[in-house]
Amino acid sequence: MTTNEYIKEHFPLLSQIDSPADLKKLPVDDLPAVCDELRRFMIHELSGNPGHFASSMGAVEIVVALHYVMDTPHDRIVWDVGHQAYAHKILTGRRDRFHTNRKQGGLSGFPNPMESEYDTFIAGHASNSISAALGMSVASKMGDNADANRHVVAVIGDASIGGGLAFEGINNAAIHDNNLMIVLNDNDMSIDRPVGALGEYMTRLSTSKRYNNLRYKTYNFMRRHRMIGDSGKGIVLRFNNAMKSLLTGQQNIFEGLNIRYFGPFDGHDVKSLVKIFNEVKDMTGPKMLHLHTKKGKGFEPAEKDPTTWHAPGKFDENTGERIKGVSSPDDPLKYQDVMGKTLVELATADERVVGITAAMPGGTSMSFMQEEFPGRTFDVGISEGHAVTFAGGLAKEGKLPFVAIYSSFLQRAYDHIIHDVAIARLPVTFVIDRGGLVGEDGVTHHGLFDLAYMRTVPGMVVAAPINEHWLRNLMYTAHRRAEGPVAIRYPRGKGVLARWHNTMEEVEVGRGRCLTRGDDVAILSLGHIGNNAARAVESLAAEGIKVGHYDMVFLKPLDEVLVAEVAAQYRWIVTVEDGTTVGGLGSAVAEWLASHDTACRLVKMGVPDTFIDQGTVPQLQAACHIDPAGIVAQVKQLITPNSSKQ
Amino acid sequence: MTTNEYIKEHFPLLSQIDSPADLKKLPVDDLPAVCDELRRFMIHELSGNPGHFASSMGAVEIVVALHYVMDTPHDRIVWDVGHQAYAHKILTGRRDRFHTNRKQGGLSGFPNPMESEYDTFIAGHASNSISAALGMSVASKMGDNADANRHVVAVIGDASIGGGLAFEGINNAAIHDNNLMIVLNDNDMSIDRPVGALGEYMTRLSTSKRYNNLRYKTYNFMRRHRMIGDSGKGIVLRFNNAMKSLLTGQQNIFEGLNIRYFGPFDGHDVKSLVKIFNEVKDMTGPKMLHLHTKKGKGFEPAEKDPTTWHAPGKFDENTGERIKGVSSPDDPLKYQDVMGKTLVELATADERVVGITAAMPGGTSMSFMQEEFPGRTFDVGISEGHAVTFAGGLAKEGKLPFVAIYSSFLQRAYDHIIHDVAIARLPVTFVIDRGGLVGEDGVTHHGLFDLAYMRTVPGMVVAAPINEHWLRNLMYTAHRRAEGPVAIRYPRGKGVLARWHNTMEEVEVGRGRCLTRGDDVAILSLGHIGNNAARAVESLAAEGIKVGHYDMVFLKPLDEVLVAEVAAQYRWIVTVEDGTTVGGLGSAVAEWLASHDTACRLVKMGVPDTFIDQGTVPQLQAACHIDPAGIVAQVKQLITPNSSKQ
Repeated sequence: MTTNEYIKEHFPLLSQIDSPADLKKLPVDDLPAVCDELRRFMIHELSGNPGHFASSMGAVEIVVALHYVMDTPHDRIVWDVGHQAYAHKILTGRRDRFHTNRKQGGLSGFPNPMESEYDTFIAGHASNSISAALGMSVASKMGDNADANRHVVAVIGDASIGGGLAFEGINNAAIHDNNLMIVLNDNDMSIDRPVGALGEYMTRLSTSKRYNNLRYKTYNFMRRHRMIGDSGKGIVLRFNNAMKSLLTGQQNIFEGLNIRYFGPFDGHDVKSLVKIFNEVKDMTGPKMLHLHTKKGKGFEPAEKDPTTWHAPGKFDENTGERIKGVSSPDDPLKYQDVMGKTLVELATADERVVGITAAMPGGTSMSFMQEEFPGRTFDVGISEGHAVTFAGGLAKEGKLPFVAIYSSFLQRAYDHIIHDVAIARLPVTFVIDRGGLVGEDGVTHHGLFDLAYMRTVPGMVVAAPINEHWLRNLMYTAHRRAEGPVAIRYPRGKGVLARWHNTMEEVEVGRGRCLTRGDDVAILSLGHIGNNAARAVESLAAEGIKVGHYDMVFLKPLDEVLVAEVAAQYRWIVTVEDGTTVGGLGSAVAEWLASHDTACRLVKMGVPDTFIDQGTVPQLQAACHIDPAGIVAQVKQLITPNSSKQ
Repeated sequence: MTTNEYIKEHFPLLSQIDSPADLKKLPVDDLPAVCDELRRFMIHELSGNPGHFASSMGAVEIVVALHYVMDTPHDRIVWDVGHQAYAHKILTGRRDRFHTNRKQGGLSGFPNPMESEYDTFIAGHASNSISAALGMSVASKMGDNADANRHVVAVIGDASIGGGLAFEGINNAAIHDNNLMIVLNDNDMSIDRPVGALGEYMTRLSTSKRYNNLRYKTYNFMRRHRMIGDSGKGIVLRFNNAMKSLLTGQQNIFEGLNIRYFGPFDGHDVKSLVKIFNEVKDMTGPKMLHLHTKKGKGFEPAEKDPTTWHAPGKFDENTGERIKGVSSPDDPLKYQDVMGKTLVELATADERVVGITAAMPGGTSMSFMQEEFPGRTFDVGISEGHAVTFAGGLAKEGKLPFVAIYSSFLQRAYDHIIHDVAIARLPVTFVIDRGGLVGEDGVTHHGLFDLAYMRTVPGMVVAAPINEHWLRNLMYTAHRRAEGPVAIRYPRGKGVLARWHNTMEEVEVGRGRCLTRGDDVAILSLGHIGNNAARAVESLAAEGIKVGHYDMVFLKPLDEVLVAEVAAQYRWIVTVEDGTTVGGLGSAVAEWLASHDTACRLVKMGVPDTFIDQGTVPQLQAACHIDPAGIVAQVKQLITPNSSKQ
């Protein structure tokens, strides 16, 4: 937390900037100092209140130059992905609230139009900026209220531009009337590492030294001789570009798609960026500026290891030493690591097993598989749709793919799951990571829909483990079964067992189990959230209230025998799930109850049918009443004598 | 229907070909005649039993040459989209069953691995072939059972390659060890018209006459001088390509992405294709062959108007005259046309209204809007994700976009709907076409999941009109509301009213209505399928059985007041919907019933939780028991004296 006095003392320029209007008052020669202050400010703030680090450090000059040149918020900047936009938040009136970043009730870690008029679009899932900004640019030229002077800029990272949605945007950019400017923030780096031919292509563009030297010499020559001016704006850049084509023997992909391309330029030379943006901004038609930046720029440890410093947690702002929480060897392993290690076990025993990740080998711990079996592990980049269809192709030829994707990103592949896997009953196992409330990443990253959308898919087995052993058993079962698709979803973070490793056992598909028997109320839970239910049951038992608790394990097929038994024995069923209450476990149990002759009534607990902002996982679970206290309260309400059915 | 005798007499070569092995026995000089017979066979068959026409006519030589050169089914051919693959079906043992094409129990209109080992992958949604085939090619090089001699070919149309999934496949093709061959079947034509910069790019490639002349001269010269042979295979093609770059001043996009590119070649010169495929097939690494074809090739009316002849219905095989069913001026209009005309009305009154389609202006009748307001209508090509995110950008700037996409294709945009529209509550209206069972297009095209997946989206209004007036009222209501997203789904084909045009009225969001009151059983229906329910109710009334019937209109928000009233008055609720019974109307009503103290029980009627093959809509509705007779039978079963609740 940073006090105003501290800010004034240490950040003499930044402390005067309450909006981009203040930034514009400064002479251009001050901008490098502003960038320096922004970096020091972010280092200071993020060392104590963790967030995304390296991406925002790399984008400082882009942010400053854009706000210096453009007339925001009238001009629109769309960030892709949003975690590069901290400097943008700090310059647009949120400096003094930045210490609340990613906290409940505080600033979102990503741009959010509900938070600020400077945040033009939701920016949590990659690759959407070009399509969204194209819509804005086209709109600004339409109708009686047309505002042809509005500039619209999409700032897209080099990993994001490899996504199919970005390509669809690029492919459509040239066919409408618009003046879209695409700024490609190319740091040779997705979160983990660059993936894909387009990435290699851009690397070749950027590392063509012969070209770069000549280009800069020409550029400087022309600038000195005032050959760059209002009348010639852009011409020189085009000339540079054409020269590059000749020198490198490479014509440009983007030019091939009718988007004027300029670059690559040094994305850390803020004064040059101001000049370039000014030269290009009023050109008609879509255009791309390719800027080369360094992820983690300005903080040596981050520059050296940008993957670790993507989201480093707390650290010492002076030494760069990362501060890890106190942990003991008996602490539970992350579900991610259990998945990764278990997959290696399965793959060791069966060469048909392969692993797929979409740009998240570290986040999903598919990295274990990558290290052990590099030839059988595929990082396809930010391409969730391709990941699933590619898995379908591998499965068609006898492989047994395990596809590890974050729940909210897998939404991108809903059709691919149906069309390219499920219809032909291909044996693809989806290990769905970050299912449920994820905490600080907030509204775009919660994995709340997976249970509901997976349940709609015919033939899909949908399961969720209550602990590490069940995760392993479910993976083992999916592997042994080797027929049709299986979805296994688990949350972000630590499991619950001191010893994660068990001898894996095949479990019966569609069979739940009783954990505790009780009197009037039975809790039916699915997955890890069942541990909250178990704590509630314990706490109620301590008060003399006996509540039944059943771990359903499978959402689909639902254990209807177990539901029937429970419905016959209890007055109330309380379903507890870490996901939307629309379409998931509660709905499945409701379907059974409503269709059968039973007096047993249902209470659905889960995440309500609304979008949920950021907070810690316990805070958010409490807000949704699926923390132990919330479950206890709900049960008590049901069994109080004068509680009547609704 | 074509008898074996007829086939023998009129198709002397084709009648001998029971599998590709038979094709391979023929000398290469016979292949043009095979192509001719295939075309005549398709004209003969499709004139009486309608299906996709122009695409398959254009792909005949590609099919013949691939099966002649490749060792299918050991070698894999993946068709994208599958409606170009009729000749493939005919050559692979399905000639004598081709008269059952698209019929219930007959051949699928698209490749289907469950139908034939020659059909390697599901191919109903565009752009999946490269990812799927890449998976197959990579798999063939892995493990102890590696089969490095397996050839894998993706045949992709020029419209399909503009989809984001195809790009993701291309972007990943060069980073794995594989020998994938991509055949680009470029006919300058998506279903309606080419869209997107990539399409323009390919047109430029193909129409570079100077280059083409030189290329062919060189090619022929080299062939004559036997400079093309086993040793030189590919070299000459590469040489041609490099020469093209120099001549046209254009370097190739695909080469930029590390995919070796050859072409464009004449896709109707079957003997040349055999030569080219033989030359290229054993090259290592991914490669693309760009073939230029004519949609509808070989049938003059189709060549002249390939859009109409994409799926022309019945026609006279001699004159080419299309045979339209008998219709009177009082016949109901298609829902599609009602949507299109209504949108024009709304757009005329309000310049904020814009229309978006993804390559289906004709199919969705967005063409009405396109004609009237070309500057406010956007055909984005096969890019459903972009369509939705682009709509989000337009809505952000005050436009009111109506996005018309087929239900099953909109599955591709599930995440975009959530992330790019719903979170920020942008006023985008989804007019979801082909909701429910679509009939002959079969398993990949039924729109069965839309109600369920749209219901999971927080803040989404989900509605379905029972007739044309309600469609108009719902569109009018969505427009007047102008806040947050609305989904309005309706089926393919004709409405039910003689006069579709009404004075539009705003309706209350979330309010259903009573159509008929009854005794023990109440039917709650949603959308057009309610007409089947109404007929069932009439027919039961004629037998003296009074059944209640309620048109819910809205799935979300559900009219809980109405459900409560009904639950209080009836013993049974029967929900009827034209979609999966998992997660839709039945689930929503079940959620209410299970949570409340009521003795009223539920029977869910709809499409069962399985994939449904092709047939006529009435056949499929009967199979799912949601035809009037099925609903009558269900009601009778409930009210027979000894019927007990389950």
